[in-house]
Amino acid sequence: MAATNRQWILNKRPRGELDADVLRLTEGPVPEVPDGAYLVRNLYLSLDPTNRIWMTDMDQYLPPVPLGGVMRGGTIGRVVESRAPAVPAGTIVQGLGGWQDYWLARPGEASKLPADPSVPLTMYMGLLGATGATAYFGMLDIGKPKAGDNVVVSAAGGAVGSVAGQIAKIQGARVIGIAGGAEKCEWITRELGFDAAIDYKNENVLERLKALAPGGVNVYFDNTGGPILDAVLQHLAIGARIPLCGLIASYNDARGLSGPRFYHNILMKRAMVQGFIILDYAPRFGEAFAKLGAWHREGRIQYRVDVYPGLEHAPETLKKLFDGSNRGKLIVKIADE
Amino acid sequence: MAATNRQWILNKRPRGELDADVLRLTEGPVPEVPDGAYLVRNLYLSLDPTNRIWMTDMDQYLPPVPLGGVMRGGTIGRVVESRAPAVPAGTIVQGLGGWQDYWLARPGEASKLPADPSVPLTMYMGLLGATGATAYFGMLDIGKPKAGDNVVVSAAGGAVGSVAGQIAKIQGARVIGIAGGAEKCEWITRELGFDAAIDYKNENVLERLKALAPGGVNVYFDNTGGPILDAVLQHLAIGARIPLCGLIASYNDARGLSGPRFYHNILMKRAMVQGFIILDYAPRFGEAFAKLGAWHREGRIQYRVDVYPGLEHAPETLKKLFDGSNRGKLIVKIADE
Repeated sequence: MAATNRQWILNKRPRGELDADVLRLTEGPVPEVPDGAYLVRNLYLSLDPTNRIWMTDMDQYLPPVPLGGVMRGGTIGRVVESRAPAVPAGTIVQGLGGWQDYWLARPGEASKLPADPSVPLTMYMGLLGATGATAYFGMLDIGKPKAGDNVVVSAAGGAVGSVAGQIAKIQGARVIGIAGGAEKCEWITRELGFDAAIDYKNENVLERLKALAPGGVNVYFDNTGGPILDAVLQHLAIGARIPLCGLIASYNDARGLSGPRFYHNILMKRAMVQGFIILDYAPRFGEAFAKLGAWHREGRIQYRVDVYPGLEHAPETLKKLFDGSNRGKLIVKIADE
Repeated sequence: MAATNRQWILNKRPRGELDADVLRLTEGPVPEVPDGAYLVRNLYLSLDPTNRIWMTDMDQYLPPVPLGGVMRGGTIGRVVESRAPAVPAGTIVQGLGGWQDYWLARPGEASKLPADPSVPLTMYMGLLGATGATAYFGMLDIGKPKAGDNVVVSAAGGAVGSVAGQIAKIQGARVIGIAGGAEKCEWITRELGFDAAIDYKNENVLERLKALAPGGVNVYFDNTGGPILDAVLQHLAIGARIPLCGLIASYNDARGLSGPRFYHNILMKRAMVQGFIILDYAPRFGEAFAKLGAWHREGRIQYRVDVYPGLEHAPETLKKLFDGSNRGKLIVKIADE
């Protein structure tokens, strides 16, 4: 056991790119465990686009991380000391354990993970975690793709988009993924079975959409907002559904977020935009994971994780989400299992 | 019968304000009636914000009016000559008869209006017409107000907004209308029973919303877009519904339409935006008119029409919608009944 607890502290609120002084690393004693609590050794830290939102004080769906506070983050860890009988030492737990080596938790703050040696722990951050559930409910509850629909997914090479597109394929839709770079485009079409890919870094998204989906876009699973959203809004089918999952294209924009220029096409095409936050679906996660797990075992859904060692590198690793250099669900490995 | 047919022709596509040369008035012969057709003397012309959209060639829900073509418009008229047995002379019909004295129509192009002397013809352009149906379906099918909800309506002094707010009141919601000027604000609160009004020309909409609806806005019936939409987006309740009916604030903007800056709050507040075009609801108009008519007879819904004589003044009259100087459903009287 390390003698100290490293923690990433929110040092200042970011504007634009993530400057090096937004977070600072501190080192302090491992906390003592009071009665009723337990100590978790964090093993994996999930890095997600929404981390960038939590650093700001904009109006959002959770309280902003306070300045001087430990950066919030999803974690998986092992209980190493417990004074809470319900959560004995050795239990593997998942929760918002933060960007730190050790997390002092109380019953109810984390959920226990099943001890199933056939399921790697990182899968609970990917297909069987928040990103899988996000793809599942966003696509099926909101997007509601039907056989023959043209379904478009942005950030299609990412943890959510790659699964969302495969779910739409299972429903019989024609699926077009928008991703950055040839590697991701090849992965989603050759490995994941997307019908087509658009490389937004090298192709005109609107022109390609017109060519690939002459009838217009019936479902647009939006992870990005920004120029890609505006391109899709110019090629909607009547009655289109737009699950609004994320707006990563503008999170790092120092001018602040801005809306789509072609918002009026929501009116003209009688489209529906539904924002959603996966935490609202927590009571139904079991349904999603059962289905996603089964599809995975049947070989109908693939996913990949991209694991980088070192809590000390977490801020640099987070940037991969915004420059698109990650390859699947982005995870920091904090310690050996 | 006039010896000539006056017609307003789309002369050029507008950019920004409606310049005097966007439409030009021509005078020609009254058309002869071929077999199977009938001739309608237009009596009333409905003026609606969407007329401004039809003049442009932007992507829209009907084909743009062609340059050199008669301006499209909703009309009520009397059949004065018929070679279509199903529609004899004397029938009162409603349809897209255009900005002209005479309309040569064929069966199926217009609907017959009931001969009920207790219902003034102009009511079929207001409460029992497209504007009433728009308020009805937008509020009930999309907004779905519940008792106790905070419901906000923009352009609340207009033909659609005034009815939409009253429908929400009947559902037990708390209704706040946003309108321009003291007269409209007094009308909707004192006469129509809105709980509160915000005069967007003289008050800070966001600050007033925070004071009037501390819990946030559950339903926002949007007729305007623009800065009012952005104010409401900053004060949404979680799970808000936004029937998107119109974007009149930006129709005259020469820079083109633009989306809301606070679009991201649709995500943060898990809100839903649903664009709708009333033509899609035509098969269900009977349901709306039965209900609206009953509420009107019971004294639970009021409406007003603002009728201006003279087809020759139609373009000037249309401008009242955009400077907010009309008082209720805006109608041009073309000829005596």
